[in-house]
Amino acid sequence: MRCEIVAVGTELLLGQIVDTNSTWLAERLAVFGLDCYFQTRVGDNLVRIEETLRLALSRADAVIVCGGLGPTQDDITRQAIANVMGVPLRRDPALVARIEAIFHQRNRPFTDNNAMQADVPVGARPTATIAGTAPGLICPLGEKSIYALPGVPWEMRTLFESDVLPDLLQRRGDAATIVNHTLYCLGAGESAIAARLAPRLQALDVSGNPTIAFLASDVYGIRVRLTAKAANAAEAQRVLEKEAREVRALLGDIVFSEGRNENDHDPAHHSPEAVVLRLLAERGKTLAVAESLTGGGIGTRLTSVAGASRVFRGGIIAYASDVKFETLDVPPGPVVSEEVATRMARNVRQILHADVGLAATGVAGPDSQEGLSPGTVCVAVVIGNDIVARTLNLAERPREQVRTLTATWLFDMLRRKILGFPVP
Amino acid sequence: MRCEIVAVGTELLLGQIVDTNSTWLAERLAVFGLDCYFQTRVGDNLVRIEETLRLALSRADAVIVCGGLGPTQDDITRQAIANVMGVPLRRDPALVARIEAIFHQRNRPFTDNNAMQADVPVGARPTATIAGTAPGLICPLGEKSIYALPGVPWEMRTLFESDVLPDLLQRRGDAATIVNHTLYCLGAGESAIAARLAPRLQALDVSGNPTIAFLASDVYGIRVRLTAKAANAAEAQRVLEKEAREVRALLGDIVFSEGRNENDHDPAHHSPEAVVLRLLAERGKTLAVAESLTGGGIGTRLTSVAGASRVFRGGIIAYASDVKFETLDVPPGPVVSEEVATRMARNVRQILHADVGLAATGVAGPDSQEGLSPGTVCVAVVIGNDIVARTLNLAERPREQVRTLTATWLFDMLRRKILGFPVP
Repeated sequence: MRCEIVAVGTELLLGQIVDTNSTWLAERLAVFGLDCYFQTRVGDNLVRIEETLRLALSRADAVIVCGGLGPTQDDITRQAIANVMGVPLRRDPALVARIEAIFHQRNRPFTDNNAMQADVPVGARPTATIAGTAPGLICPLGEKSIYALPGVPWEMRTLFESDVLPDLLQRRGDAATIVNHTLYCLGAGESAIAARLAPRLQALDVSGNPTIAFLASDVYGIRVRLTAKAANAAEAQRVLEKEAREVRALLGDIVFSEGRNENDHDPAHHSPEAVVLRLLAERGKTLAVAESLTGGGIGTRLTSVAGASRVFRGGIIAYASDVKFETLDVPPGPVVSEEVATRMARNVRQILHADVGLAATGVAGPDSQEGLSPGTVCVAVVIGNDIVARTLNLAERPREQVRTLTATWLFDMLRRKILGFPVP
Repeated sequence: MRCEIVAVGTELLLGQIVDTNSTWLAERLAVFGLDCYFQTRVGDNLVRIEETLRLALSRADAVIVCGGLGPTQDDITRQAIANVMGVPLRRDPALVARIEAIFHQRNRPFTDNNAMQADVPVGARPTATIAGTAPGLICPLGEKSIYALPGVPWEMRTLFESDVLPDLLQRRGDAATIVNHTLYCLGAGESAIAARLAPRLQALDVSGNPTIAFLASDVYGIRVRLTAKAANAAEAQRVLEKEAREVRALLGDIVFSEGRNENDHDPAHHSPEAVVLRLLAERGKTLAVAESLTGGGIGTRLTSVAGASRVFRGGIIAYASDVKFETLDVPPGPVVSEEVATRMARNVRQILHADVGLAATGVAGPDSQEGLSPGTVCVAVVIGNDIVARTLNLAERPREQVRTLTATWLFDMLRRKILGFPVP
């Protein structure tokens, strides 16, 4: 089954916002084996939206169009779809009532403009779920269909999962169930992972089920995704679990998190920071950080996870050297060394009364410091009397990447210490 | 003159990377008044790239295609363009020598694969500039042209500015010079800004030169961009400066930064954090922060600016309440109040020996705290004995946006205090 994605909005064509919706949809389609060969962005122009939808329909079985469903004059996606279907728009009174109820519930005034969001092309139907204040649309055209979703990312995602994806899978007429299992890895590059998995890659290449894919990202390391297909869920799950066990055994301690089914796909739940917070919470342990080059970035990532307060007590950002000397009791002298990182971690742990201390000191760049080149970073983890410190070489990377990778590696060191794995 | 943007890469269609290149190009085209009605993303498939280029050429005068110029078998954009032009690829010996010289200079081995990057469709020419290891291509097709750029963002941007933009402007056959002036605003929404500028909006609507555009972004507030066109640079600059003065007078103290020419377009130089660091550095003042709900985010943003160490000494992340009591000497009790924010700012300033103290405490969400709903945030700025504290209402926003806006507002409060403007 072939899909296309169309993003509607003049603000996209003016470069005012980045089109993350298409990226998100593309990944979800790929996960379920739904092909997507083209993505198009078009402005709020009726003729051009129609032209784009017609072209997409000529090439694909299903077209997912995002944006242009709001309550203003610019929002003309509904009309464009009706024109392509060759039908009029008709206001759906039951839908007006549903939308009005949402406005009342939120104490917001309901206007005629909002009622416009209940206009539905004849022959189409609104999505069963409403995430914001308006539904998406499911619009059949013979064997094909157009799915219209709002442009607001969380609304788009919610309606895709609740209404569009099930409809797509049903339309595929494919009785098979597809399930996924993702292994999140840190500590080995894509080629090293491929080398470890060589026996399985060969076997899977022959069997074709499950399939395996690698996805790389700076912050989250490399994801290894297994996708199994079978006549029913139980069988698909069995095939998947068996393969996941073998792959996990080959990957060993570089796996820092696992997504066990196709709905457990939010990388934020599998970030290194989310994982260490979970591990510490399970053990009733608290955490404090001492940061230099990251300037607060380690704390920011930890506190981006809702519920971090059960574990994270706080930190000291010792950016200037003499703040390290005075506040963290580091002996005056050079400040980029494993000894300094260790002292920072130990002392912040004591000052903030935490069980675990983390620290990072180093050269983010662009300039050298203490004769050390940018990307030289020392990190330390202190758990009681248990101390580990390492020097990272993140040379030839831009400042922001040095800072991001420092936090990622520190979280992974902590994970390894907690679970008793060796720290490379 | 009408342009289209085509991004090539199967990784885009699989949702593995976000297409920021198209967004960046779209904004640059808009700045120079070059229309762009469609953007398309297509995979590494020769037939589909050709189909996409042909369609784009049928609708536009110029097509900018990004990606697929690398040295591997997947990189087929060169071949696709040659096919669309109806010409063969020919290896350019002078270009081989240029590329080889770059490899030698960087001590990297030069292989046959890299020589492939010197293949040029007959009738096309390589860009004068090479940013990474390979040039872009300028490919005339009668009155129209295809511009091929690498997919690596900084290479793409460099070659666009050096070779593509000048060629586009020349092809437009427009002897006029276009210059821009951007005013970065915080503290008023788009409609409030439009109301303030009403007299100028009317006048500009009549004259048509300069033009005015509003661009909104969460982190950077609202940008007001003036674009002037004239027969020569001096005249364009004169028209622009005159209008900028009038607009600035109407906007008043909500303008926190200005980009004074068309190359000064990097919003990172005009972020609220970059601006306050500059203002403090000019005054020889240092800064410390005390953070609760932001968890290090204020420090992270300050230290994302290279050279922050001249001003930023560090901070205390007091996430747990008792860290506020013990480390920042806040009296035990509720921790979300202007009094607590003030105490945090005053004490972190003293503890870290800084001239200026900033603090934020509040409810990031998703849960309420101390009977206060998510989005209730108290912030304080302390400069010597000069103290200002405010309560922000950032209700109904997701956790990350509450944290981002807290830092943005705090930076803007500091700017206003430094410059003697009222703090709303």
